[in-house]
Amino acid sequence: MSYTTIHVEASRSYDILIGRGILDSIGEMLRPIVGDCRLGVLTDSRVDELYGDRLIDTLTAAGYAADKFVVPAGEASKCADNLLEFLNFLADCKLTRSDAVIAFGGGVVGDMAGLSAALYLRGVKFIQIPTTLLAAVDSSVGGKTAIDIPAGKNLVGAFYQPSLVCCDTALMDTLEPDIYRDGCAEVIKYGVILDKTLYDKLQEPPFDRESVVARCVEIKRDVVQQDEFDNGIRGLLNFGHTFGHAIEKMSNFEVSHGAAVAKGMVIAARMAPLCGLCDVAEELSALLQRYGFDLSSPYSADDLYDAILSDKKRRGGNITVVLPKAIGECVLVTLAVEELYDKLKLILG
Amino acid sequence: MSYTTIHVEASRSYDILIGRGILDSIGEMLRPIVGDCRLGVLTDSRVDELYGDRLIDTLTAAGYAADKFVVPAGEASKCADNLLEFLNFLADCKLTRSDAVIAFGGGVVGDMAGLSAALYLRGVKFIQIPTTLLAAVDSSVGGKTAIDIPAGKNLVGAFYQPSLVCCDTALMDTLEPDIYRDGCAEVIKYGVILDKTLYDKLQEPPFDRESVVARCVEIKRDVVQQDEFDNGIRGLLNFGHTFGHAIEKMSNFEVSHGAAVAKGMVIAARMAPLCGLCDVAEELSALLQRYGFDLSSPYSADDLYDAILSDKKRRGGNITVVLPKAIGECVLVTLAVEELYDKLKLILG
Repeated sequence: MSYTTIHVEASRSYDILIGRGILDSIGEMLRPIVGDCRLGVLTDSRVDELYGDRLIDTLTAAGYAADKFVVPAGEASKCADNLLEFLNFLADCKLTRSDAVIAFGGGVVGDMAGLSAALYLRGVKFIQIPTTLLAAVDSSVGGKTAIDIPAGKNLVGAFYQPSLVCCDTALMDTLEPDIYRDGCAEVIKYGVILDKTLYDKLQEPPFDRESVVARCVEIKRDVVQQDEFDNGIRGLLNFGHTFGHAIEKMSNFEVSHGAAVAKGMVIAARMAPLCGLCDVAEELSALLQRYGFDLSSPYSADDLYDAILSDKKRRGGNITVVLPKAIGECVLVTLAVEELYDKLKLILG
Repeated sequence: MSYTTIHVEASRSYDILIGRGILDSIGEMLRPIVGDCRLGVLTDSRVDELYGDRLIDTLTAAGYAADKFVVPAGEASKCADNLLEFLNFLADCKLTRSDAVIAFGGGVVGDMAGLSAALYLRGVKFIQIPTTLLAAVDSSVGGKTAIDIPAGKNLVGAFYQPSLVCCDTALMDTLEPDIYRDGCAEVIKYGVILDKTLYDKLQEPPFDRESVVARCVEIKRDVVQQDEFDNGIRGLLNFGHTFGHAIEKMSNFEVSHGAAVAKGMVIAARMAPLCGLCDVAEELSALLQRYGFDLSSPYSADDLYDAILSDKKRRGGNITVVLPKAIGECVLVTLAVEELYDKLKLILG
């Protein structure tokens, strides 16, 4: 069995293992990381149906006692009620401080399980097994965990590093096309913000999944290592996200994360020349369309502006957006909110 | 206005200010710590009635916008529902990452506000204004935050350091006697575990509050600085707590924390000679009785043992207890759970 290992230095350092078919070896891969302990597994109904037994089999074969908690697939599950139920479940299973929590699923499961691991007994070990492309290239690095609350998405969370991430890219074979496409938006984002070579490699879909996932993880690792607590350069990873989050929110999350980020990246690309930077909007749009993204913007500048103002990344009367200087090089640009409004008006009318 | 400053080095360093009457100066004391920002205040109904207006007045006079959220006084408030309501409240008040949360109350409010500050937008600044003796000497140092869940007390939480602690000892004048006594149990604990001089000073109640609070905070600071994440020497602070927590839990929290810790310290003191250590049980009991503690143990060894086994501090088949070697010097002793049971049988029958 072959896989790539990417090492992440953070407040807790850990390895990310990426390979095809590594799911069935996860039991033995865990041993050097968590030793002999009890495992609390969080997964969702869809992943459980497809792969739940295989995970439990590899864990059991390696001698682990694992307790599984299943939430319905979908973003609606990333709520406080499920978080608390899972935390109570961990207590009922008598997990101690030397035991561990496993996330087996996409971003929803990863975010919730990570936050549970951060909070249960003030912190137990956390193992992440991402099953979507988006989770593999995004939430598996960086230690951001969160849940949604009525007032907004991801408003409640913690920075908490996993002890190990195992990414079996074969699990992505069964993703629904729109879920897979969500991940492609993030992959393209990495190319635009920091890696022209990666961007060029993405020109003819489908791309080689193992090497592309590994490269995206490396890029995110390099950025996050410089800025674990998200006070500076890590902002680059938000390319397309300030606008994307606003679009997601306005659509009541009918527009998926990846679809919204794709639209957001195009808005950012169109804003760049208005700030004296280069214009890559047409080129980027063409690539995104090749992946099947709908790039129409259903909202007006006024609507988008209002939604952005309630975004958590706003500090005082300024807002920082990520704009391309060239393909493979983005910069953080801080605008007064009034300037942002004016530019949105020019772009969206 | 005079006050004592105790500096704490932790993953985030901060000062603890202790003095009589400093409440009315808190607004100006905040300025160098949080700058110009919005403040989300958590308090309880009792503290709010007595001192709520004075706090808001000092904050307003210093130019701060403060939004106040009041929970009913009492441990029952330290629940997930209130935590989430407060988090939603912070979002509704549009607090950003550069704003701050204030805890104004005892341990319940401090633990919940601290956890809220840790979780809101993955972490905002946290200011603590303890109003009880227990909160001043215990939860104001160490960064432990938590809520209770149905499966148990303090099972969900985080390590999160405040940016400033302001302790106005005059606020303790209005504490009900049993609430004040709760704090005295912790004060006596500090004497037993690490400071014979402090212990001697406590022989004739009432003690001098400012200097005793400051000394207790110093002791806890020294211990916590050596072991922020509670993996070693910090265990000393649990003197009386392994048994105390079990007693609290068995009484369905009818026995208060301090009353339970007092009983727990006596059990620990009686266990010491069974482990080849000295016997200070009689001396310690006499002092605790001078403060009005009822030291009877309403539970059998079997009951207590079962309750302890579900305690979160248990690792595998062993349990670590804190036992006095002498007044002013305690040690961590790890026992197999069977040994613990045998000794409890000898003590409690």
